Formats: sequence, structure tokens, C-alpha cells
Amino acid sequence: MDVPLICYDCGATATLAAGARCDCGEPYWVATDSECFAWPEGGKRSLWRYRDLLPDVDPTGLAAGAGGTPFVRAPRLDGDVGARVHVKFEGSNPTGTFKDRGSAVGVAAAADAGYGTVGTVSHGNMARSMAAHAASAGLDCLVLVPADVPAERLALLARYDPTILRVEGDYGGLYDESLRVGREQRIAFVNSDTPLRVAGQKTTALEIAEGFAPEPPDAVVLPVSSGGHGSAVWKAFRELRDAGLATELPRLYFVQTAACAPIADAWERGDRTVTPIEGGETVAYSIANADPPSGNRVLAAARATGGGVLAVDDEAILDARRTLSADAGLFVESASATALAGARRLAEGDALEGDSDVVLIATGTGFTERDVDAPAVDAARVELGALDDAVSERMG
Amino acid sequence: MDVPLICYDCGATATLAAGARCDCGEPYWVATDSECFAWPEGGKRSLWRYRDLLPDVDPTGLAAGAGGTPFVRAPRLDGDVGARVHVKFEGSNPTGTFKDRGSAVGVAAAADAGYGTVGTVSHGNMARSMAAHAASAGLDCLVLVPADVPAERLALLARYDPTILRVEGDYGGLYDESLRVGREQRIAFVNSDTPLRVAGQKTTALEIAEGFAPEPPDAVVLPVSSGGHGSAVWKAFRELRDAGLATELPRLYFVQTAACAPIADAWERGDRTVTPIEGGETVAYSIANADPPSGNRVLAAARATGGGVLAVDDEAILDARRTLSADAGLFVESASATALAGARRLAEGDALEGDSDVVLIATGTGFTERDVDAPAVDAARVELGALDDAVSERMG
Repeated sequence: MDVPLICYDCGATATLAAGARCDCGEPYWVATDSECFAWPEGGKRSLWRYRDLLPDVDPTGLAAGAGGTPFVRAPRLDGDVGARVHVKFEGSNPTGTFKDRGSAVGVAAAADAGYGTVGTVSHGNMARSMAAHAASAGLDCLVLVPADVPAERLALLARYDPTILRVEGDYGGLYDESLRVGREQRIAFVNSDTPLRVAGQKTTALEIAEGFAPEPPDAVVLPVSSGGHGSAVWKAFRELRDAGLATELPRLYFVQTAACAPIADAWERGDRTVTPIEGGETVAYSIANADPPSGNRVLAAARATGGGVLAVDDEAILDARRTLSADAGLFVESASATALAGARRLAEGDALEGDSDVVLIATGTGFTERDVDAPAVDAARVELGALDDAVSERMG
Repeated sequence: MDVPLICYDCGATATLAAGARCDCGEPYWVATDSECFAWPEGGKRSLWRYRDLLPDVDPTGLAAGAGGTPFVRAPRLDGDVGARVHVKFEGSNPTGTFKDRGSAVGVAAAADAGYGTVGTVSHGNMARSMAAHAASAGLDCLVLVPADVPAERLALLARYDPTILRVEGDYGGLYDESLRVGREQRIAFVNSDTPLRVAGQKTTALEIAEGFAPEPPDAVVLPVSSGGHGSAVWKAFRELRDAGLATELPRLYFVQTAACAPIADAWERGDRTVTPIEGGETVAYSIANADPPSGNRVLAAARATGGGVLAVDDEAILDARRTLSADAGLFVESASATALAGARRLAEGDALEGDSDVVLIATGTGFTERDVDAPAVDAARVELGALDDAVSERMG
């Protein structure tokens, strides 16, 4: 490719092969003929692109910026998965996870309904997301966390200045208790599987489907915790079927961490309802929900689409996380890497076919977990004067 | 707003006021009438939306996901700045900064031209971005860093598996040396102000302008370091003027960190060229460039648009960073917060008017700097049984 260049200062022209800098000493930039340019058609980028399918509320501030995340091919993962791999990168949401989609709709609806305070039960991504959206909208935000949550996680949350309460006692029971207290004290709680959150989060799947239009992909693989996001993805594809925009629903595969896998356990047993368990420690703490409120709904989604629910261990999760950054350029949180780890497991079992399109939903950025599994750094020291040899030795 | 709900399981209907869960025990979701839904028109979300203004290359993998970042109002900052404040949040790019725009174009062009290796001179955001895009495209990546770069920063970079060389000697001189070595050894170096990088990075401004179409905003305030991004923003608005899509260019204000402000110094003196300095320590290390290769081009942009170049100190930067997360829900890196700190300074000097629209470019996410200026956490412990009182005491 021959790229034409022009010096902004003296007007000299050249092509890229001549180097980056003009003889006058100033940098070239690319010469562009823009005279006939017009703005492209359409193009709301955020989740509000699908406004016809959303509750009728007006987003203001940060809410207008949720969704519209990158959806990219990851050809170097095809061999791992035995199919064409696409990744929906939810780490590009404003607070780094898919949670912003639900928070955007939930907080906008709360503001619209005249609430002065929103709330949530979370000690991680959802808490941060709700606090950020409330901050932008000028609403107060109450976050209920377990008493033993690590200080580091709270420090990140505190950046957005919510009111934080550490609650001693049964954290599972707190989910329903918060909804009751919210109703009684007029605080709009937007928890992990409440209707407005699910309404916002379904837009992940709408974006995936639009990327594949006219027909959806063959399979979608995503982490599952409370089941709110999984339910949302199912709902989106059902709506598209009703609209005549999907003949067949993609198979939905939900992946849990082996240390805390009540939905996968129920699936394995062929149960239609999830039995709460005692969860163990895992690197994928964001999805370690021992009593998932939408677990049954996820089982229904897996059955209805011909998919499944499975669990992967910490070693497989961390290995998948390393692969996603080193081979796809996507640094994700451990919980998100379960999608690739799960797809690898499915590939072993012939659930995926070579000529099919498989979408992994990478639910959140890895930057919030930069200390987890930090790599050793191999970086030789060289003198500037010896650069030529050092480069040719390593890259030649 | 009355939101209609339906139970996915038993089909019972309700409205949001009834709560989140059906009497049958399963969660409601929002009832949506999707039968008449059709995909909206147009809508490529990434920077490739502006393909007519970009070098003629095909993006594959991660390159297809750069750009298309949130552009939101931040009404709670209006009072700080004395104008309507809008923020372009570049932290939503795949590796967390605007650098992905230039890397996407640069790496796609290198792949198109048959290069097997790309390179860059950087110890932070640009290095991470280049390594990620190379990883996705299946190219090798060489990153040249100063010998004394902190191990923590290299560990984050190493996630994307580039070859890293620590170079002893004059880091400023390394910029040009790398371009020479790249030409001689057929490595496509995409440094901070090289033409392909500037070509990609101009799309930040195209997105801002499209958000404001038919006419651009009154002023844009952004951090400046090498001057590559600043040059790109200027170039974009010039192209739009040539296309008849901008009658007047916005005033461009470039902000440096006071500890290392060679461009602001030159502006202050009325010079047309920048004199290199010895920079000091600053929280905004990402923009501490003591010998900016596009410094003169930035001075030209400020003159041509009626804008300016200014510097802000670390205290003002950290204060602005806290405000951006607590009042706009946007957690940014220290270098990015210079935009708000600079706008506050401009407001003191009457450079901005109350009925004008001012855009701050928040160049990168704060998650990569989560330990910087970490807040104290105020989080009371309460028993689950005492939740009602604890909530009403604090939120009532």
C-alpha cells in the first residue's frame, strides 16, 4: 500500500516509504482527499440504538455511553475451539463490564420515575457500575457489600463516591431483603437479575445478532453467575425470532467456575431447578454465586436452545485468560475467561463444528485484576548504540 | 413510567411496581413487543465508519474494534467549567486508551504491506496497544522501553507477549533511531506521531464532530504529550472544513503537566518552535514528553484555531481526576484528568463562555492506575437484621 503524505508546514509531498518526517524537519501526516466526504448514514453507537426494544426512558450523562462495544474476530483462537471464534468485548463499557448496560437502563428509569437514590447488592463490577451511573445522573447510590470484602475492591468502588454498607449475615438473603427495603424506603434497587437490568443487558445479544444479520451465529458461550445476563441473552434472541430476524436461536452455553457451580450441577443432574450450594474460593470470584436467583431461567434457556451449562476449573480459567491477551489482544478478568475455557471443553466433546460461528462474551476488562497471575517479564537491557544488533538478533 | 413485566416461566403479567419476582417464584422480565422491530439503518460503530477518510486497508481481528467510544454529557461539571461539558471517553478502547485508534490503522497497514513485525517506542499505553493489536493480527511486536521503567508497568505490557528491550541511553534520541532501524530491518514502527498513527487517531475528533453535526463544538480540550494526538484532532477538523462539514474549527486547547511542559512554555513565550527541556516527576507520566516530536505542529494548531496551550500541576490534576469519577462516573488516568484541570483554568480566565459547548477528551482509563491516589473507604458494618434502620439513617 502506497500512502500519500504531506507536510502540514511547508506543503511538501511524499509517500510513506520516504519516512515519517519532512526534510524541513516537521512531521508528515497522511494526505487525505476529504472534499467529497459526507457523514455516514445512521449510527447511534450505544445500546440506545435498540430503543424500540427498551423501556421508554431518556438516558442522560453516562447512561448514553453504555453498550456499543467491540465485536471482533479472533482467528488465532479458531484452532482452540474448532470453529470460527468471535469475541464480544464488554470490557469496553464505561466502567469496564457488561453491567453498565443494565445500570444505564435501571438508573435512567429511576431518574425518570423521580427516585433520588438507587441501590444494589454487589461487591464488584455491578457495584462500581451502579455508583458510576448514579454519580453521573446526580442520584445518591447505596451499595450493600458482604462484611468481609477485600479493602482493595472497596477502594476502587469508592472512587465513584457511593454510600457503602458492609452487611454481616447471610449475603444470599440480602438480595431479596434489599428489594424489600428499597420498596419501603423508595430506593430503586437494580440487582443482578431485576427486570430493568435484564432489559438493558439483553442489548449485548442484540449487538451480536446485528453483527451477524440476517441470521444469528451458531452458538454463544458466556459466563454465568446470578443468571441475569444469561437470561437477557436468551430474551434478546427470542425477541428477534418474534420480529422475524432469527429463524433459529443460537445454542446458548453457560459456563461456571468449578468451585461454585450450582447451575452446572443442576444441568448435569437433569434438574429444572437449582439447589443452592456452599461455594469455594476461585479466581473467578465475580461469578461465584452459590444461590443464583435466575438459575432456573438459565436452565430453561440452555434446554430451549439446545445448549448447555458447564463448569471449568481455575487452572483452565487462567490458561484461557493468558491466551485471550497473548493471542487475541484482549485482557479480561478471570471470570470472563471462563467463556474461552468453556468453549475449549465443548470442542473436546464435539459440541462445536468446524464450519460454525461461535461467539464468546468477554464480560469484563482485566485491568481491574492486573495483579492476578501477573507474568514474569523477560526484557533484556541494551545500549542505544548497540540497538541494531540487539534488534536483528531477536527479531531477524 | 409503568414498565410491563411477564414471567418467562408461567406467563403471569405484572408491572414494575409489583416487584421483580413472580408469585410462582421465578423472576419477571420486561414484556417487550418486538414483532415490528427491524434493524436500525447504518451503524458501523468502530473508527472504520470513516473509512473514506482513512488509508485503504482492511482491519482484521482487534483492529476492527478500535474507536466508537462513548461521548457523553457531564452536566455536573458545567459549573466547574462555565460551559456545557461533554466528555469523549477514550478509556473504552480495547486496551483502555485512544492509542488503539492509531495502532489499529498502523498494524492493519503493516499486515497489508506484508510486514511480519511491528514496533514502537513507549513504556505505557502505546506499547500495550501495539502489542495487543499485533497479537490479534498474528504479527511479532518489538517494544523499546527506557531502562528504568517500573516492573509493574512492564508486567501489564507482558500480558500481550511482545518482545521488550530496555534501552540504556538517550530515550529522546531513540524515537528517530527506531524509525531508522525499522526501515533497515523491515519492522513497521508506529511511533507516537508517525503518519499512520495520526491517521487513525484523527477519528477521535471525527466522532466528536459527528456527535455535534451539523457544526462542531466551540472548544475541545485535551492532554498533549508528543503532539501526535493533538495534530490528529486538528487534521480531522481541517478535513471536515474541506468537506463543507465545519464552517469554523473549534478552538483547540492543549494541556500539559506543569512538571514537563515544553509546548506550554513555547506558547507562553510566543515561540513557533518547541525547545526540549529536562522534565520532572509527575503523576501524569503518560504525557511527560520533554522533547515532543510534534510540538511545533501543536503550536500551529493552537494558533490556527484561536486556542492555546497551558500547563496544570499535579494537585490540580488529581483533584480533577477525583471529580471526573465522583461527578461524571468516569474513572480516568491522571494524564487524562489534565483536560478537566485545564478547562477549569480556562474558565478562570474567561476563555470559555456559558452558552458554549466544550469537549474534554479523556484519553485513557484509570483502571491501569488504580493505586494512584487511592481513596480512604468509609463503609460501616451493619447486621442484616438491622438493615432497615441503617439504611434509613444514612439515606433517609
